[in-house]
Amino acid sequence: MRMVDIIEKKRNGNELSKEEIEFFIEGLTNGTIPDYQASAFLMAIYFQDMSDEERANLTLAMVHSGDVIDLSNIDGIKVDKHSTGGVGDTTTLVLAPLVAALDIPFAKMSGRGLGHTGGTIDKLEAFDGFHVELTDDEFTEMVNRDKISVIGQSGNLTPADKKLYALRDVTATVSSIPLIASSIMSKKIAAGADAIVLDVKTGAGAFMKTEEDAAELASAMVRIGNLVGRNTMAIISDMSQPLGNAIGNSLEVQEAIDTLHGNGPEDLTELVLTLGSQMVVLAGKTDSLTEARELLKGVIKDGSALVKFKQFIKNQGGNPEWVDDPTLLPQANFEIEVTSDSDGFVTEIVADNIGVAAMKLGAGRETKEDDIDLAVGLVLRKKVGDPVKKGESLVTIFANQEDIADVATMIKENIHIGLEVPESKLIYREIHK
Amino acid sequence: MRMVDIIEKKRNGNELSKEEIEFFIEGLTNGTIPDYQASAFLMAIYFQDMSDEERANLTLAMVHSGDVIDLSNIDGIKVDKHSTGGVGDTTTLVLAPLVAALDIPFAKMSGRGLGHTGGTIDKLEAFDGFHVELTDDEFTEMVNRDKISVIGQSGNLTPADKKLYALRDVTATVSSIPLIASSIMSKKIAAGADAIVLDVKTGAGAFMKTEEDAAELASAMVRIGNLVGRNTMAIISDMSQPLGNAIGNSLEVQEAIDTLHGNGPEDLTELVLTLGSQMVVLAGKTDSLTEARELLKGVIKDGSALVKFKQFIKNQGGNPEWVDDPTLLPQANFEIEVTSDSDGFVTEIVADNIGVAAMKLGAGRETKEDDIDLAVGLVLRKKVGDPVKKGESLVTIFANQEDIADVATMIKENIHIGLEVPESKLIYREIHK
Repeated sequence: MRMVDIIEKKRNGNELSKEEIEFFIEGLTNGTIPDYQASAFLMAIYFQDMSDEERANLTLAMVHSGDVIDLSNIDGIKVDKHSTGGVGDTTTLVLAPLVAALDIPFAKMSGRGLGHTGGTIDKLEAFDGFHVELTDDEFTEMVNRDKISVIGQSGNLTPADKKLYALRDVTATVSSIPLIASSIMSKKIAAGADAIVLDVKTGAGAFMKTEEDAAELASAMVRIGNLVGRNTMAIISDMSQPLGNAIGNSLEVQEAIDTLHGNGPEDLTELVLTLGSQMVVLAGKTDSLTEARELLKGVIKDGSALVKFKQFIKNQGGNPEWVDDPTLLPQANFEIEVTSDSDGFVTEIVADNIGVAAMKLGAGRETKEDDIDLAVGLVLRKKVGDPVKKGESLVTIFANQEDIADVATMIKENIHIGLEVPESKLIYREIHK
Repeated sequence: MRMVDIIEKKRNGNELSKEEIEFFIEGLTNGTIPDYQASAFLMAIYFQDMSDEERANLTLAMVHSGDVIDLSNIDGIKVDKHSTGGVGDTTTLVLAPLVAALDIPFAKMSGRGLGHTGGTIDKLEAFDGFHVELTDDEFTEMVNRDKISVIGQSGNLTPADKKLYALRDVTATVSSIPLIASSIMSKKIAAGADAIVLDVKTGAGAFMKTEEDAAELASAMVRIGNLVGRNTMAIISDMSQPLGNAIGNSLEVQEAIDTLHGNGPEDLTELVLTLGSQMVVLAGKTDSLTEARELLKGVIKDGSALVKFKQFIKNQGGNPEWVDDPTLLPQANFEIEVTSDSDGFVTEIVADNIGVAAMKLGAGRETKEDDIDLAVGLVLRKKVGDPVKKGESLVTIFANQEDIADVATMIKENIHIGLEVPESKLIYREIHK
C-alpha cells in the first residue's frame, strides 16, 4: 500500500477501505508517513468528504493509535457527556453529582486545555488540595463505591488525533465535518464510555455559527458513535450568549453549587436537566425523559446531589466544607461594576468576546504555559431579554488588579442594549441519527 | 503574512495576489514554509484552480527562485521548443540544425531526465567525446558564430519548481493544469528564450490522454508565456503511437541524420516541419507558415542542415565524420525481429508500453542513478495503418543481451493487428491563446 495512492483515491472522491484508513493512521503515528502527505490527504478530505463508514473507521483507527481506557471493572452503564465548547459552561460540574446521586456511574477523564476559562479540572482545583492524579484502581474503586470520580487525561490518548489536529491548525483544514467529528469522537471512545450525550453549541460564541452547521456536526458524531457501538445522541444548544452567569473558575464552582441547591441560573439549570435526563435514559434508569427529569429534580430537592458533590470533593483531596461556605473558595481582590449607559433591553451578549474579556483578567490560558488565576472572572447581572435601566449593573468584574479599564470597555462594547425584546432560545433540537 | 491564511484563501476559491504567491515561493525556497503547508496548498490548488494572473505570477516567482539565464549577448530572436514528452521523439535533434541553418539562433539548455530513452544530451553523447560542459562565454560565442549550441542545465534553475515537483509526486497533485503549466513554463522562461514553441502530446503514450486535455494544458502554457512577455504558441500532436521509427539513443541519432538527409520517417518529418515553420515565423524570418516550410525544406534539400549538424557535433567535441557514417555510432550486438502472427493492418501501437520495452533493454533510466546503454533500442518496421503479412517483421530489437524473450512478448502484446485500416492523425491543432 502506498500513501500517494490513498491520497489520489480520496482526491478522486472514492471511498477508502478500513485497511487504507488504518494504514494512514498507523503510518502517521509511527512516523513512516510524512506530514506533507498527511496534510495533502486532509485537504483532499476537506473537499471530498467521507462516508459514515470512512468516518467510523478513521475514528476507530485514531482510538487504537494510543491508550484505550478500560472501564469494564466499573459496574453499570457509563455515560459520558461532551460539550463542543463555549463561554461559561458549568454543566459538567453540576451534571456529575446529579447523575451520580441517581446511582449512575460518572467516570470521567478530563483535561485542562486552552480557552476563556480553565477546563473542568482547573475549576475543581478551586478546592485547595483537589487532585486528579489517581491510579486506575483508585479511580475504579471510587466510582464503584460512590459513582463519581474525575481522573487526569492519559498522556497517550489518541496520539494520531493530536498529530492531525496540530497539522489541521496550520493547513486550513480545521473546519471539515468528518475531521472535527472523528477527532472529538475518537477521544470520547478512547476514554471508555458506553454511551455518550453530546452538547453541540451554536451561535456567535460557538465554532458552529448556525443551527444547520451545528446539526450537521452533531449528526456526524452521533452516527459515528452508534456505528462503533456506543449509544450516542446530541442536543443542539445555544451559545449566542454565555451560559449561566459566571465566567471564571472559582465563580463557576460557586454557580454550580448554587445550581445544586436549586438556585442556579435558569438557562444553566434547564440545560443541565435536558442533558442529564438524556444521560439518565441512556444509562437505562428509565425510558421516559419526563421521568428522568423528575428524578434529577428530586435529587436537587432532597439535597442528595449536593451531598454527592461534597463526597466527590472529599474523595479527591478537597475540603467539603467549602461547598457549604463557598466564600472559602479563591476570591478576587476587586469587584467592579460595568453599568448600562441607557434604558432598554439586553439584545445581545457577544459570547466569544465576553469570554476573551474573562481570559484577559487571567481566568483562562492562551498558551499551555499560562497560569490561571482561579479567583478572577465575570458575573453577568443581565442576560439577553432582561430589561435594564441606565446606571444598573450589567456585569460584575472580579479582578486581582485595579486597572481593568480595557476589560470594562470590551465588555460594554459586547453587550448591546435595544428597545425591543429579542427572541432567544436555549435548546434547538435533539439529534438521534 | 501567514501561510495558513494563504492556504485558506485558495481553499475558499479566492484569487491570490502576486505578493501572496511570492511569499509562498520564497518561503518554500528558503525553507521557512514547511512541506506540510506547501502540500496542503497544492491540494487546494488542485481543487480550486488558478486564474491566468495567478498562474503567471506563480511561474515568475518560480523563475526568480533560482538562476535566470541571460541570452541577451546572443544576436537575434532566440526561439526555444519544448515537448511534453513521449516515445521516440527525435524532433529536437532534427530541428536544431534545421533552424540554425536558416540563421536562427538555437541556444538550448538541456537536461538528462528520466524516461524510456535518455534526454537530448544523452542521445548526442552517442557521438564519442560530445559534451555540454561549456562556459557561458563559449556557449554565447558558439551560438553567435554558428547559430547552434546545447549547454547542460544549470544546477540552480527553478529550485522552487524542483521542490514542488518532488512534493506533487508523492501527494497526488501532479495532474493539475495550473501546476503542470507553471512548472514547464518556469523552466522555459528561466532558460532565457524570447519565444517558445510548445509541442503538447496527446494519446496513449502522452500524459494528456485526450485532445481536449492536451488543448487545455497547451492553452494554459501559451497564456502564461504571452502574459509574461514571451511569444508562445503550441501544437497538439499525436502520441498514441511512437513518433518516427527509432526508440533508443544511438538509433534516434541515426534517424535524425536520415531525416536531415530527407529520408526520415514521414511522421517525424512532418512534425519537424510543422514545429520548425512555427519557430521560423516566431523568429521573424517570415510571416508565412508556407514560406517557412519551404525554407526548411530548402536547407534539407541543399544539404546545409546536415552541414550545420556536423558543425554542431564538431564544436562540442564529437567526430563529424560519424554523421556521414552512422555505423560508427554505438551499435548493439544482437538484432532480433518481432514478427506478426497474422495478416491484416496495424491498428494500434501502444506507445508507453513500447517505450517501457525499450527502457527494459537499457535505453532509458528508471532512477537517476541508472546507466544508459546508448546502443540498444527498437526500430518499428510498421506503423499504424500499415498492411502486414503473417511472419513479417513488426519491430527490430537492438539488444546487448540475447535473452530478451520478455521484451519481445511485451512488444507483441502492444502492437495490435486488425482487419480494418484505423483512422490516424499526426497534428491535431494549433493553440495561440
